[in-house]
Amino acid sequence: MIYITRRERFNAAHRLFREDFTDEENLATFGKCSNPNWHGHNYELFITIKGEVNPQTGFLVNLKTLSTIIKEKVIDKVDHKNINLDVSFMQGNFASTEMLAIAIWNELYKEVENLGAILHKVRLEESENNFVEYMG
Amino acid sequence: MIYITRRERFNAAHRLFREDFTDEENLATFGKCSNPNWHGHNYELFITIKGEVNPQTGFLVNLKTLSTIIKEKVIDKVDHKNINLDVSFMQGNFASTEMLAIAIWNELYKEVENLGAILHKVRLEESENNFVEYMG
Amino acid sequence: MIYITRRERFNAAHRLFREDFTDEENLATFGKCSNPNWHGHNYELFITIKGEVNPQTGFLVNLKTLSTIIKEKVIDKVDHKNINLDVSFMQGNFASTEMLAIAIWNELYKEVENLGAILHKVRLEESENNFVEYMG
Amino acid sequence: MIYITRRERFNAAHRLFREDFTDEENLATFGKCSNPNWHGHNYELFITIKGEVNPQTGFLVNLKTLSTIIKEKVIDKVDHKNINLDVSFMQGNFASTEMLAIAIWNELYKEVENLGAILHKVRLEESENNFVEYMG
Amino acid sequence: MIYITRRERFNAAHRLFREDFTDEENLATFGKCSNPNWHGHNYELFITIKGEVNPQTGFLVNLKTLSTIIKEKVIDKVDHKNINLDVSFMQGNFASTEMLAIAIWNELYKEVENLGAILHKVRLEESENNFVEYMG
Amino acid sequence: MIYITRRERFNAAHRLFREDFTDEENLATFGKCSNPNWHGHNYELFITIKGEVNPQTGFLVNLKTLSTIIKEKVIDKVDHKNINLDVSFMQGNFASTEMLAIAIWNELYKEVENLGAILHKVRLEESENNFVEYMG
Repeated sequence: MIYITRRERFNAAHRLFREDFTDEENLATFGKCSNPNWHGHNYELFITIKGEVNPQTGFLVNLKTLSTIIKEKVIDKVDHKNINLDVSFMQGNFASTEMLAIAIWNELYKEVENLGAILHKVRLEESENNFVEYMG
Repeated sequence: MIYITRRERFNAAHRLFREDFTDEENLATFGKCSNPNWHGHNYELFITIKGEVNPQTGFLVNLKTLSTIIKEKVIDKVDHKNINLDVSFMQGNFASTEMLAIAIWNELYKEVENLGAILHKVRLEESENNFVEYMG
Repeated sequence: MIYITRRERFNAAHRLFREDFTDEENLATFGKCSNPNWHGHNYELFITIKGEVNPQTGFLVNLKTLSTIIKEKVIDKVDHKNINLDVSFMQGNFASTEMLAIAIWNELYKEVENLGAILHKVRLEESENNFVEYMG
Repeated sequence: MIYITRRERFNAAHRLFREDFTDEENLATFGKCSNPNWHGHNYELFITIKGEVNPQTGFLVNLKTLSTIIKEKVIDKVDHKNINLDVSFMQGNFASTEMLAIAIWNELYKEVENLGAILHKVRLEESENNFVEYMG
Repeated sequence: MIYITRRERFNAAHRLFREDFTDEENLATFGKCSNPNWHGHNYELFITIKGEVNPQTGFLVNLKTLSTIIKEKVIDKVDHKNINLDVSFMQGNFASTEMLAIAIWNELYKEVENLGAILHKVRLEESENNFVEYMG
Repeated sequence: MIYITRRERFNAAHRLFREDFTDEENLATFGKCSNPNWHGHNYELFITIKGEVNPQTGFLVNLKTLSTIIKEKVIDKVDHKNINLDVSFMQGNFASTEMLAIAIWNELYKEVENLGAILHKVRLEESENNFVEYMG
């Protein structure tokens, strides 16, 4: 069993808030992350897959194919977007790093399976000080 | 003459666009950076000052004081904000990295002079691939 | 189950040595790390906690609260200190990265539990080339 | 149980290809990584070992000893070399990051055991965007 | 006057040697960098241009255009290549980082001028420990 | 004219204080950096030299030679040391980053001249947030 990780990046705006809260209640709960005019991040996304090395090629999957799938299913939908407003697979979710990591897992799980590998981990870094990991 | 650099960070949303352009014209000119619902970045700001070492203290200025000034004059105004909508010193400006670096220079020049040093350079990194430097 | 990591940093002096050894014996066992006048590091500390996402907030715990706890229980006690001489929770321990990581785990375990999460891992980086991980 | 990681680096050339393929077939299968005149990387190697802290020294193993073993058994054989042509322990293998990580595991497993610890993970980074992990 | 920097990356093989030297003489002069079977690097290239901000767009040049030019004139010619054998603009040159940085300057100078800016600096990083800067 | 930079690293303890001050006065002036039991850093040192490329070798100076000189004249004297107590070339100086950068310049200037190049800059990083540059 070998584990391979591909990093991709995207830049997006978001806001932490509840629609049933006033701006003041959101500020009390979510702090400056609830700024009504949004803020944003350079997100770093690390997708780890696992499986056995293909003896014909010497690798698990073609990393270019994996990168293409991540781009089509995730990056193209979130890069230079507003996570709350523009991202179909986040509709109805809080735009927290936790919920975003879980949603990305759901976008990719089947796709990685179709490649003949298993999705092992989604790691989503919001800043150099904070990151989230989800393993299903 | 010695040069000292302090790094500070902030997370903000922005959009590149002209108000007199349609969304289509903005897209043609500014690409995905013109997304009407904003996007965002983890900005890294490097402030370089220069001057002579104080023989009483062995340093140019107290870095804690410099950091406090950068926070009060810049970071508190841009962190977790929307550069286009929320930042007083960017009103009427394009929210490009270039214009933001120049505006930060203007915010800090006098303040650094009051510390007994000279502002030498503002370096503003928008991503690991792009950065801007301004030296007046 | 989701995993969240918060990075904090501290700068400290330390020395690897045994009190019952001469300086020569310490040098033979611990090399230049036994320098009697100390040396130091910029330590990077990564605290990983795990648990379930709170459906009211969309996150596991408020990262600001986690950061505050790490600062109060660990960073304030070790930052700009001498690990061997100044740190209450290291009294009687070797000031190795291994022992420091274990001591930090013990400082934080109950505190994280009180937040409604579980401490998963302490990762302590002494330099870009060396780090230690402890999971209880 | 404590986990300790040592990073080492090496620079090497390699090529992904099958000897029974034409250059065209190799290009179709391996893309630009099959360039007949080679290309290369700055590889970063992270060796993680595990075990119990020695109460006499306060650490798991002497990191200097671990570093020396990694250098003798791996780095000296791959640094400034051609992975396909110059590296004895890669003879007959594809020169992929996956196969190289597995071969490094095999080079080090017994050596780490002789130190009184257990090899836990080989992590081999080919670029800032791609890395492989192997745990036996 | 504002300075903008774009980072691009490429992976390549190379060898330091003189054709009129024996392998032994090359080894004595260039050390392990003269390995006859090549070695390689992940090069990081930072292209800095300067000029005045365009008042219509708020930026100096469109960074996407700059990136495209760097890719066409440099990256496509060196990425996954052998610097000594495959790169037209290095024919007859030593494949040192110094000579490569100067050759890249020559490839880009006119192109940047055509964009309405001035090429200010080529910075080429061969490893985390070594880099070269050329300013004409 | 070409500029080449070599990075070296060292770990050291230090303290900011004046001998004619009480601990309280030192605390008021230098903050937690005056801790009587010292603290420490992983320093990163970037030495930039300049000159013309040697047409016989294709490089400015042999980087291995430059690295050896930096190690002999600086790193061996400061690594795993106490800057205030152990470092001959800092005797009588404040152990600030500014003074250390200037002292390193003085240690290296003649040595670089003997290599046939000119010392251009000493850059000394104390942390990811603070660094000093000295150019004579």
